[in-house]
Amino acid sequence: MDKWKRSSRLTDMTQQLITQPYRLLPLPVFASRYHSAKSSISEDLAIIDEVLRKEGNGRLETVAGATGGVRYIPSMSNQLIKQILTVLCKQLANPDRILTGGFLYLSDLLGDPELLRQLGKIFATLFGGREIDSILTVETKGIPLAYATAAYLNVPVVIARYDYRVTEGSVVTVNTTGSNHRIRPLSLSKRSLAEGSRVLVIDDFMKGGGTIYGMMELLVEFHAELVGVGVMVESPTVERRIDSYVSLAAIREIDMEQREIIVEIGNLEVGEKNEES
Amino acid sequence: MDKWKRSSRLTDMTQQLITQPYRLLPLPVFASRYHSAKSSISEDLAIIDEVLRKEGNGRLETVAGATGGVRYIPSMSNQLIKQILTVLCKQLANPDRILTGGFLYLSDLLGDPELLRQLGKIFATLFGGREIDSILTVETKGIPLAYATAAYLNVPVVIARYDYRVTEGSVVTVNTTGSNHRIRPLSLSKRSLAEGSRVLVIDDFMKGGGTIYGMMELLVEFHAELVGVGVMVESPTVERRIDSYVSLAAIREIDMEQREIIVEIGNLEVGEKNEES
Repeated sequence: MDKWKRSSRLTDMTQQLITQPYRLLPLPVFASRYHSAKSSISEDLAIIDEVLRKEGNGRLETVAGATGGVRYIPSMSNQLIKQILTVLCKQLANPDRILTGGFLYLSDLLGDPELLRQLGKIFATLFGGREIDSILTVETKGIPLAYATAAYLNVPVVIARYDYRVTEGSVVTVNTTGSNHRIRPLSLSKRSLAEGSRVLVIDDFMKGGGTIYGMMELLVEFHAELVGVGVMVESPTVERRIDSYVSLAAIREIDMEQREIIVEIGNLEVGEKNEES
Repeated sequence: MDKWKRSSRLTDMTQQLITQPYRLLPLPVFASRYHSAKSSISEDLAIIDEVLRKEGNGRLETVAGATGGVRYIPSMSNQLIKQILTVLCKQLANPDRILTGGFLYLSDLLGDPELLRQLGKIFATLFGGREIDSILTVETKGIPLAYATAAYLNVPVVIARYDYRVTEGSVVTVNTTGSNHRIRPLSLSKRSLAEGSRVLVIDDFMKGGGTIYGMMELLVEFHAELVGVGVMVESPTVERRIDSYVSLAAIREIDMEQREIIVEIGNLEVGEKNEES
């Protein structure tokens, strides 16, 4: 059993910490894995922490005591968030997205793993300071975004469904109304969410907010607590049923005749969560 | 502008490479970012590559030439794959999963970001040697698994839907039959997949294979090529419509009276893709 060199330890520890955000890794495991003194491990962690902070990629958090350890708290610098959302807005403004009825095609963006990873990290930056037990989304298109966020926050994803299936077991159902005033039942598996859970709602698109309002009604039925609402895109509407949410991008206008889409960065407030930049 | 120390470079490069699998990162970008000589960068990459290989976490691939660079090819050691799938089988065998009608509740597993990351990395290990343009799955439960795999293979996810929506634009539709012989139309947005694409199909659960057969029929309509089929769990059936697939776990029997589920590791062949272990 050779003692690991610092360079090898740094590579391996960085890989382990980065791929398991918010997961507490006990220090003795590192010490025995690398056959190294605890003091060396602590120095390594200080280097990793410094690089993460300097580059606006988050930080390490050390928890003292017998059940303690170290974990990676991911975050993104304001500068990079603005860069990414500026590119997103440009992509959203592409008139080729306009579909019959004034809908926008978004499936390409919601299928791009690189973009999803970035947006998931942005949501993790915005909501990371809050205590979250689960992320709730609705089928279908919100799922990849919810999963990308969950991967950075290390919490499970729970999926509400319009289309009740036997594979969900017993469900709780509420009725939702969309922008077309059609009533649709929305169900959540009873065993998917523990009573009293603290829940972050993530979805791809919000217009009137009927779907998100439906998810909030489900949370009431589960005696769960809403921690926040994050949507990728909000769209202009006369009346909105939700007053507190974070949007990454906001469509201001879709001009069908001129084939023009006006998009701005959403209502997110960057700054408070970032220690750098 | 200070020159970066090796320890800082290693941490930052590892973080960048690991979080962007299969993405080619040009070497000059590293050299200018760290104000370091190319020879130093090459030495760093050799250290990272060595640690990744030694720990069975994949490897770095260097592409020479003007458009060249380095990328991270993720993979998992046979030993770790077996460990993870043994735990998965144990979780699947929990009789509390049995639902009315002999269905199994799987949503907790498919909502667990840590497990999804591991299973996505296993699929990336098994299929990573093949040229893949897109991953195709079907709503709803297969989506997180498809996304987790796509994140490791750096390819987009495309979602076939039972429930046609206006937000998909024009679609191609085929009919599928499930184990209950009910016919259900399955649609895929025309603009989601380019003609001639090489496609990996990923789904959570396969019994008779009707859904996957439907996806294969969609691929024919798109003049796309099937590269492989990966499912998390296969379930016993009299007749299967698919003869070539990779399963991570296989349910052999669900005994409703004894409330017993017999599960084994699936038909995957581990070994060929791993250079270590």
